[in-house]
Amino acid sequence: MKAEIIAVGTELLLGEIVNTNASFLASSLKDLGVDHHYQTVVGDNPERLSQVIRIALQRSDFLIFTGGIGPTPDDLTHETISKTFGLELVEFPEVLTSMEALFKSRGKTMSQSNRKQALLPRSSELLANPIGTAWGIWLAPEPGKVLVTMPGVPTEMKKMWEEQIVPRLVPSGISPVKVHSRNFRLCGIPESKVAEMLGSYLNSDQPSVATYAEISGVRVRAATRSEVSISQVILDKFENDVMIPMFSDYVYSTDGSALEKIVGEMLLAGSQTLATGESCTGGQISKMLTDVAGSSKWFLGGVAAYTDAVKNQLLGVPKDILDRWGAVSKQVAYHLAIGTKETFKSDWSLSTTGFAGPASHGSSEEVGLVYIGIAGPKGFYHVSEHRFGSSVRRDAIRLQASVVGLNLLRLALKSSSSLPPSLSL
Amino acid sequence: MKAEIIAVGTELLLGEIVNTNASFLASSLKDLGVDHHYQTVVGDNPERLSQVIRIALQRSDFLIFTGGIGPTPDDLTHETISKTFGLELVEFPEVLTSMEALFKSRGKTMSQSNRKQALLPRSSELLANPIGTAWGIWLAPEPGKVLVTMPGVPTEMKKMWEEQIVPRLVPSGISPVKVHSRNFRLCGIPESKVAEMLGSYLNSDQPSVATYAEISGVRVRAATRSEVSISQVILDKFENDVMIPMFSDYVYSTDGSALEKIVGEMLLAGSQTLATGESCTGGQISKMLTDVAGSSKWFLGGVAAYTDAVKNQLLGVPKDILDRWGAVSKQVAYHLAIGTKETFKSDWSLSTTGFAGPASHGSSEEVGLVYIGIAGPKGFYHVSEHRFGSSVRRDAIRLQASVVGLNLLRLALKSSSSLPPSLSL
Repeated sequence: MKAEIIAVGTELLLGEIVNTNASFLASSLKDLGVDHHYQTVVGDNPERLSQVIRIALQRSDFLIFTGGIGPTPDDLTHETISKTFGLELVEFPEVLTSMEALFKSRGKTMSQSNRKQALLPRSSELLANPIGTAWGIWLAPEPGKVLVTMPGVPTEMKKMWEEQIVPRLVPSGISPVKVHSRNFRLCGIPESKVAEMLGSYLNSDQPSVATYAEISGVRVRAATRSEVSISQVILDKFENDVMIPMFSDYVYSTDGSALEKIVGEMLLAGSQTLATGESCTGGQISKMLTDVAGSSKWFLGGVAAYTDAVKNQLLGVPKDILDRWGAVSKQVAYHLAIGTKETFKSDWSLSTTGFAGPASHGSSEEVGLVYIGIAGPKGFYHVSEHRFGSSVRRDAIRLQASVVGLNLLRLALKSSSSLPPSLSL
Repeated sequence: MKAEIIAVGTELLLGEIVNTNASFLASSLKDLGVDHHYQTVVGDNPERLSQVIRIALQRSDFLIFTGGIGPTPDDLTHETISKTFGLELVEFPEVLTSMEALFKSRGKTMSQSNRKQALLPRSSELLANPIGTAWGIWLAPEPGKVLVTMPGVPTEMKKMWEEQIVPRLVPSGISPVKVHSRNFRLCGIPESKVAEMLGSYLNSDQPSVATYAEISGVRVRAATRSEVSISQVILDKFENDVMIPMFSDYVYSTDGSALEKIVGEMLLAGSQTLATGESCTGGQISKMLTDVAGSSKWFLGGVAAYTDAVKNQLLGVPKDILDRWGAVSKQVAYHLAIGTKETFKSDWSLSTTGFAGPASHGSSEEVGLVYIGIAGPKGFYHVSEHRFGSSVRRDAIRLQASVVGLNLLRLALKSSSSLPPSLSL
């Protein structure tokens, strides 16, 4: 069976809402092992919707509709399905009764406009909506074809999908088997390089492998449709024989975890603590670290040091160093890291200083230049220089600097040989 | 001209990413007055993509592609366009040169796999990508038809669309007329209330008015397709006669500006400075403030004070206050604000302390409870209590606390009568 998702709603064509329903359903279909090659968005227009249905029938067997089943005059999905397949619209009394009860439970009276929501194509199986008035249908309009309709409101759609449609998929022969997948996250290597190194694995089948560029680096997804115990073996083998030997320390997570969570787990395992001293990233790294639930166990805090005075007075960066080298310098990155570690009495510290743009304050140095400093136990320190590109946007430079900093800290925490040598001061 | 958006990428069919590109483009097309009836998502599969192109050509004139122009073997958009229209793929040397320069500026060497990104259909006009390797094309493959390709990465796609495609739309006859719009941002009032108060204005035409729930509050958008001078009058009238009298201080921006930018402009206008002392928001407010270009003129810095020791030693919150009332208390919010102002020698300070969850550390107080403190010139202070809901996610609580804090600071900065009274300590 091949599925196709058809989202109906002019608000999608006006860009007023994002089609998160499609990604939710796509992800669920993948897990259910249902092939799915197309998604279509069309407005509340019966001619165009009818054409979209005809096109979908030629290439897909399981049509999944979201939206267009509300009470307003422009909600036309059920009416259009009726006309397209020549099925009479009939009133389903249980829908009416249920809607009336729902209104009553909220202390309201059902509006006349809601009556049309009980008019559904003959032969429909009903998909109840316990939290709204828009009931869906399960219908086999032609031999070998199944269609379902659901509300456009995401909470109602998800509930109907999970509680009423998914349980019918295996019995009806639409869902064959579950897909098992593993997500590897990499940092410090471009996607093109990852793809090049994976080479023929990208065309392999057991597991199927794909790469994705993400803001925080690259994700490699390996997936297989074998049964659970065999899938485990296939994915373990791919992890141990391919991913780890090939990418070693670039791989920071084999279960899709975020970089800041991995860093936190490493600190927690060693009963160590961290503090941050951020200039150009202005608090972004400490924000990311405290996104992790339970981060107070290993994160003491940080200073966003946005002026020379704050760098000097709160974090002890010597005034002559600031005057001599300027705030954006490897020397200041070093002293920020050392000063942060001392101020917070932490085991580790991470610092940033750079030009996030759009202007570089009259300096001859370019926007996108960032120095990152790390200080650790037993006098360990590490300073590095990064150029994120002078035409890159301020927010992207700040985010990349944060991610690169966290990745360097991760390598330092594991005393990895992949940590590049520190700049000399 | 009728536009159609075609998003190419198996990751969309696997539900791994949400198609935010489509909603961005749809919204922009609406503003440009370009009709747009369909959106399609298709995987990285040349046969299916080619079929989608043929269907789109029958019903649309302006085909907008996103995705599938990266360096990996499954990036096949340009290749498939070539085959579908019988246009030879040729190497464009300026693309190669530019890619090599980009890699060099980042201190890296171009990978061999990137070469394919310079292979584009003959007769293409190039759409440069200053921040990535995926260049797009503008192509008229048949009389009366235009297609454009863009990267799937949202930042790169948006930049290419706004800087290179939009300027060509009016000259090429695709965009007939510009829509003039004004975006009002409101904070502290729910969307349903805004919609209720706007009432019949939501059905009016000059201007057309719509409300949107946003993470940072509510946006009201007023739009008109009249010519520029008339539009100005219509939008001014709506602003002065409706929005401002009806919502007064709830409206913090009449040009769509972010809250943090408005706060910065108010500080700059008064030559005043700000510092932050954040516990539960952990640096998020200082991150948001430093997202604003030029924020170093009015933002001195902040401390993410994630432990009692840091609150005490860096920001001077008295130890007996912490012991007696606990870190999440109105007293600590007050002392955090006062201590931050003194530590940074700023004119204003903003502090947060609360339970962001998922656990509330054994306290009987619930997750979602946040205290916000503000200190200002001449002994001004303000402390308030907020409950964001115990079933709300950690990241949402932190973001809401940050936004509410910035909005309270805005009201304090303008000595607004809308600022609720401070809690007594």
